[in-house]
Amino acid sequence: MPGFGAADEAEMGTRGCGPLIPPLSESMRPLRQQVFERVRASGLIPRVQVAKDLGVSPASVTTITSELIEAGLIEEVSAPRDPELGRGRPAVALGVRAQAHMVAGMKMSDREHSAVIVDFAGNLLANEVVPRRPGPMPLAEMLDAMALLLDRVCDNAGIARAALSGVGVGLPGFVDQAEGVVLWSSTLTERAVPLAEAAQARLGLPVSIDNDANLVALAELWFGAGRSLADFAVVTFEHGVGMGFVMNHKIYRGSQRLGMELGHTKVQLDGALCRCGQRGCLEAYVADYALAREATTALNWGHREGQSISVLLESLYEHAQSGDATARSIFRRAGRYLAVGLANVVNLFDPALIILSGERLKFDYLYAAETLAEMDNLVINTGRPRPPIEIHAWGDLLWAHGAAALALSAVTERILMAPREMAAQ
Amino acid sequence: MPGFGAADEAEMGTRGCGPLIPPLSESMRPLRQQVFERVRASGLIPRVQVAKDLGVSPASVTTITSELIEAGLIEEVSAPRDPELGRGRPAVALGVRAQAHMVAGMKMSDREHSAVIVDFAGNLLANEVVPRRPGPMPLAEMLDAMALLLDRVCDNAGIARAALSGVGVGLPGFVDQAEGVVLWSSTLTERAVPLAEAAQARLGLPVSIDNDANLVALAELWFGAGRSLADFAVVTFEHGVGMGFVMNHKIYRGSQRLGMELGHTKVQLDGALCRCGQRGCLEAYVADYALAREATTALNWGHREGQSISVLLESLYEHAQSGDATARSIFRRAGRYLAVGLANVVNLFDPALIILSGERLKFDYLYAAETLAEMDNLVINTGRPRPPIEIHAWGDLLWAHGAAALALSAVTERILMAPREMAAQ
Repeated sequence: MPGFGAADEAEMGTRGCGPLIPPLSESMRPLRQQVFERVRASGLIPRVQVAKDLGVSPASVTTITSELIEAGLIEEVSAPRDPELGRGRPAVALGVRAQAHMVAGMKMSDREHSAVIVDFAGNLLANEVVPRRPGPMPLAEMLDAMALLLDRVCDNAGIARAALSGVGVGLPGFVDQAEGVVLWSSTLTERAVPLAEAAQARLGLPVSIDNDANLVALAELWFGAGRSLADFAVVTFEHGVGMGFVMNHKIYRGSQRLGMELGHTKVQLDGALCRCGQRGCLEAYVADYALAREATTALNWGHREGQSISVLLESLYEHAQSGDATARSIFRRAGRYLAVGLANVVNLFDPALIILSGERLKFDYLYAAETLAEMDNLVINTGRPRPPIEIHAWGDLLWAHGAAALALSAVTERILMAPREMAAQ
Repeated sequence: MPGFGAADEAEMGTRGCGPLIPPLSESMRPLRQQVFERVRASGLIPRVQVAKDLGVSPASVTTITSELIEAGLIEEVSAPRDPELGRGRPAVALGVRAQAHMVAGMKMSDREHSAVIVDFAGNLLANEVVPRRPGPMPLAEMLDAMALLLDRVCDNAGIARAALSGVGVGLPGFVDQAEGVVLWSSTLTERAVPLAEAAQARLGLPVSIDNDANLVALAELWFGAGRSLADFAVVTFEHGVGMGFVMNHKIYRGSQRLGMELGHTKVQLDGALCRCGQRGCLEAYVADYALAREATTALNWGHREGQSISVLLESLYEHAQSGDATARSIFRRAGRYLAVGLANVVNLFDPALIILSGERLKFDYLYAAETLAEMDNLVINTGRPRPPIEIHAWGDLLWAHGAAALALSAVTERILMAPREMAAQ
């Protein structure tokens, strides 16, 4: 990748990958990952509970947890004892060893770049936000922005880049996570960009990339709803509409990692024009730009150069709240199409929970009683209640936290699934 | 369940469940199922290939396959040797032992009841089709029909009911496979019917039930595309529109087993009336009854008592083929909505393959060049080709075959995942 890898950037190496676990019988490898996942998801959990949850023998769990402790990935913690149980040995629980690794998570969005550094248990150590001018940028500029952002957030944490075990990066658009390729993003001028490889060369650290909606799902999986649920859907509203789907404690991405494009499912034949160039996409009815398109008509604003879309939408919202019928009809229609989109998610995926996430959720039309009632009329009538809907209106740092979770999964997978040859190095 | 279990029906028992595998270390149980699945899906496969495919040691595979052979589930078969490899021991492959079990599969549809009996390798031993009058029937009548159908197909196979290890039943509607409950079906007058339990009591055999579209996906998984693919979608066209989704060699059903209702996803807000009572369902634009609704107008047929919908649609198709513009516009519109439905499947699931299945596919508008071109305009533009689409226009026996696959999975799961207590009996 010519042009990247300036002299001051470190070469890629095994540095920062942490201790490797000695080789274990290959047939036990998937179980080893399950045990680690169980401990990670639980926060603190006794060995006997791990065995019970996974349906395996306590002896197998003891063998595997000993190895994980020896490798420094998990640790024993004295748990508060149940006073009812009286005397005896103090109870011991297992937890992830927070100081085992540090990773960075970054979200490169249309309007700002944000980053966090977290430890192996997901605790926030530092964060940073860098505003940017809107619009797509060439790859070289994107790499500069990533390097700047990473250095700033490392400064905030008081650490050197080399102390990190990996970096996770999220951006909007069509991203093949497994191949590390951005097929299209509103933030990049080029198409089919091998961003993970380029960023890895530039930053001198292992880099994983993903679609930003998947990152919100990952953040929920690692630090939120996923602690108690195996299957749920996350629907994100922001400059576009995204979706992430957690199935059996894992993100489902599709055969080419290009699924879950809820914002581009068609809800109207020959419908409204979407910024993707197609017609009738859900996004073209409920995203920022769709509302803004109608708001300029409703508020008679015309085209204002450099006008912030946020200011426009805030004004539209105020008009709706003060009773303006046209402004209300804009939100009402968007809410109805949102109901169609959410009902289709229920009818196809039958999730245990839908989490709505994104800053736009402060516009409460999105989850107004009418929208939910409309949704009830569009969900198949099985005689059972529809899945619950939760609103998590978190900001950009959540997305960056999800990017950190992506880096944490890459780090743990690299260690736990290491083939014999690698582990023997 | 009073009223069921007539004197001539056998009591439920362990009979027909086949030999049980001796207890194996619990941590190995999932691997045991994986090994069996690999052998089953492959047809014939050498041990070393099983080890390679699953990424486990040949020693583990040898231990597990010995147990499976001892239990009579799989067997060694002399494989034709590659003449290039010269002398040496004759090559040995593993295959499912066809005579280990027999099961029945039945499809209870709106217009006929069909059944097959297959052996453990899925080979067809007998079949039977019983026409019925259309419309929903009470549970008691449905159970009578199932008992009659089962006896007839057993007669055709020259076996007694007791020779079967289980029965799989498919029917249209909202079916919770895990709980064995039909929440709603166009074939039953009651709602929330515990059909599996009732049929089990009546037939004296283990009974599994499922939505009929899932059965087509199961048939493909066991006997068709699933032999080479881990992930694919099946979309069925018949009296309604259904979908089954195979993910990592398993049917994905949703958290309450009520997902994949593609026919009831909404493609138009306030759209055409569906027989489910809601508006804008995909089914209301492309299913039999949707075409028939417009055909009566186009052909000026009015309402004809007892008129077969098939005759009506055949006539509509002939008119379209001979150039009738109105008849053509009916198929053209249905084709466009079908394109929307299929594009939404691609945009959400990103499947490796979509299989279109069902007798209606002989109306080639469903996969006419225009429909596929329309679909290309509605699938997200990633720069990669969209997933391939295959047409499998098989009849009702395929669905019954899928029901048999459901029974086969239930039988193997019962045996392979048997807990210690059960295996020790």
